[in-house]
Amino acid sequence: MRTRKSYERKSLTPEELGRYLEERRLLVDEALDRYLPGAGDHPKEIHEAVRYSVFAGGKRLRPILILAAAEAAGGQVEQALAAAAAIELIHTYSLIHDDLPAMDDDDYRRGRLTCHKVYGEAMAILAGDALLTQAFILLSLPPPLRQSSGQASGQAEQSKATDTQRSAEVRLGVIQEIAQAAGSKGMVGGQVVDMLYEDREVDLPTLTYLHEHKTGALIRACLRVGGLLASAASEQMEALTRYGERIGLAFQIVDDILDLEGNLEALGKQAGSDLRKKKATFPSLLGIEESRRWAHRLVSEAKQAVVIFGDRGAALAAIAEFVVMRRG
Amino acid sequence: MRTRKSYERKSLTPEELGRYLEERRLLVDEALDRYLPGAGDHPKEIHEAVRYSVFAGGKRLRPILILAAAEAAGGQVEQALAAAAAIELIHTYSLIHDDLPAMDDDDYRRGRLTCHKVYGEAMAILAGDALLTQAFILLSLPPPLRQSSGQASGQAEQSKATDTQRSAEVRLGVIQEIAQAAGSKGMVGGQVVDMLYEDREVDLPTLTYLHEHKTGALIRACLRVGGLLASAASEQMEALTRYGERIGLAFQIVDDILDLEGNLEALGKQAGSDLRKKKATFPSLLGIEESRRWAHRLVSEAKQAVVIFGDRGAALAAIAEFVVMRRG
Repeated sequence: MRTRKSYERKSLTPEELGRYLEERRLLVDEALDRYLPGAGDHPKEIHEAVRYSVFAGGKRLRPILILAAAEAAGGQVEQALAAAAAIELIHTYSLIHDDLPAMDDDDYRRGRLTCHKVYGEAMAILAGDALLTQAFILLSLPPPLRQSSGQASGQAEQSKATDTQRSAEVRLGVIQEIAQAAGSKGMVGGQVVDMLYEDREVDLPTLTYLHEHKTGALIRACLRVGGLLASAASEQMEALTRYGERIGLAFQIVDDILDLEGNLEALGKQAGSDLRKKKATFPSLLGIEESRRWAHRLVSEAKQAVVIFGDRGAALAAIAEFVVMRRG
Repeated sequence: MRTRKSYERKSLTPEELGRYLEERRLLVDEALDRYLPGAGDHPKEIHEAVRYSVFAGGKRLRPILILAAAEAAGGQVEQALAAAAAIELIHTYSLIHDDLPAMDDDDYRRGRLTCHKVYGEAMAILAGDALLTQAFILLSLPPPLRQSSGQASGQAEQSKATDTQRSAEVRLGVIQEIAQAAGSKGMVGGQVVDMLYEDREVDLPTLTYLHEHKTGALIRACLRVGGLLASAASEQMEALTRYGERIGLAFQIVDDILDLEGNLEALGKQAGSDLRKKKATFPSLLGIEESRRWAHRLVSEAKQAVVIFGDRGAALAAIAEFVVMRRG
């Protein structure tokens, strides 16, 4: 197993955070490659389309949040990799379906042609369906074998049996958490509201509902799933949940600001596209300065929430900071 | 709890089978109504679309197969209702996406307008996504409480704890089974092949692959899930699997024959639509008589497979018979 640096300190320098994110991104990419059917697997057309969209240069923020939450609560990265990969598959499916002509009708995503532009609309619908389903295949897989830590073998046997049973219940809880977050009262519900209000005036409560569901629900679930997999205590789960809710919303507010200010090179999509579609955004409702203040307040609340993890919460705190500091 | 007739006999008369199917259909409809978000739940637009498609007059064959398999293997209907509802949600999602303009572009299904004709294409894509996700919500729910059967309370407590743990592992197995059957190497894979060969010559192995995946994989999973939920022994699982594979294919062959012979009133969709699209079918490759003989042989093998269940397999045997006798 590769050796990883320990990032268990109260704060990370920007360089350390950069290395941390890059290292985790590679771990997640390896897991995705391992857990997805090969590009040549029959029928190869769908597996090609699936891999085209999954390996499109994403930052893997959501899976990294699962890993970071699991570690903050005392768990290990290895326990959380399947769930981390599953979340990225769900995120990717949502982007593919969102980009379809009947939905946002986007030709580019992260500077590359969208799935339906390359493989056609029917294949893109099916690739999204396949990804969503594949996520639940991963989530129901048996967990990786635990490393024995020098226990007497009888004890180890017994503890392994208990582990397997407990682990089955935990994994069902994880499936429940993710399915709820992705479903019609979570992410899909947010997309519905987004679609319904495309050409209508949106007020702040509706816009907040929209984002708390369309992107927030899945981000919140990442934190909770990390906690569940590490058997977090209830006050730890609450802290992770609060952190997840705050950075989920902050992320969207910053996205809106970047979209307004951004340019094609930085974002890989046509800048100002929300504005062109007359979509309501946080800066359009609140102004840029007020939006920025709100994002900073949310990030500071998120960082406050993870103080209870001590040094083990340093990565989460640094990620929260990164959300408002990023430039694309 | 409602009293149900016992159908545990070697064979059912057509009238008994009719009552059996109707009774189970009502049970499944009740479960679907209970497990789905209400039509007024926010955002109501998606829940309306979901319910429009789920309650469109389906025969509920797949969920009934789960219940029948569970009972054949000595289990109870109540244990299998959530999984039965989940399978119907997955079946419904596949129909909604299949009917989309980018896919089969069908305006009618079972004599009613398709989801996208009523709610628009974007909402139909999202309704399908919501249904697939909702299926995994149901599958990860805690199982219904078992009725105590007069054990001493200490024993009962202990057996309940063991039940819960075992049940978590069983439910993960069920999720694995269903997700595999629905995914890119199952149902979605079959849809991909269907789409790729829409305007091309299809040979018999390809047509068989197509149907064994597009419809067969989910039907096979129904039988296996019923078995898993009833803790079926391995030879029982093999029998259920064989039965499922045979009737899945027989069902499709008979569908092809009915489509060729059928008419609008009987099927609720335009008859001969496969022919109009120049789609290859079993009768177009083998002729009607040879197709009919094949379907009968498959049904007879399916009935043979469930002989090991004795009287408890009577419903499965009668359902197999029904597959080739039906007229719509």
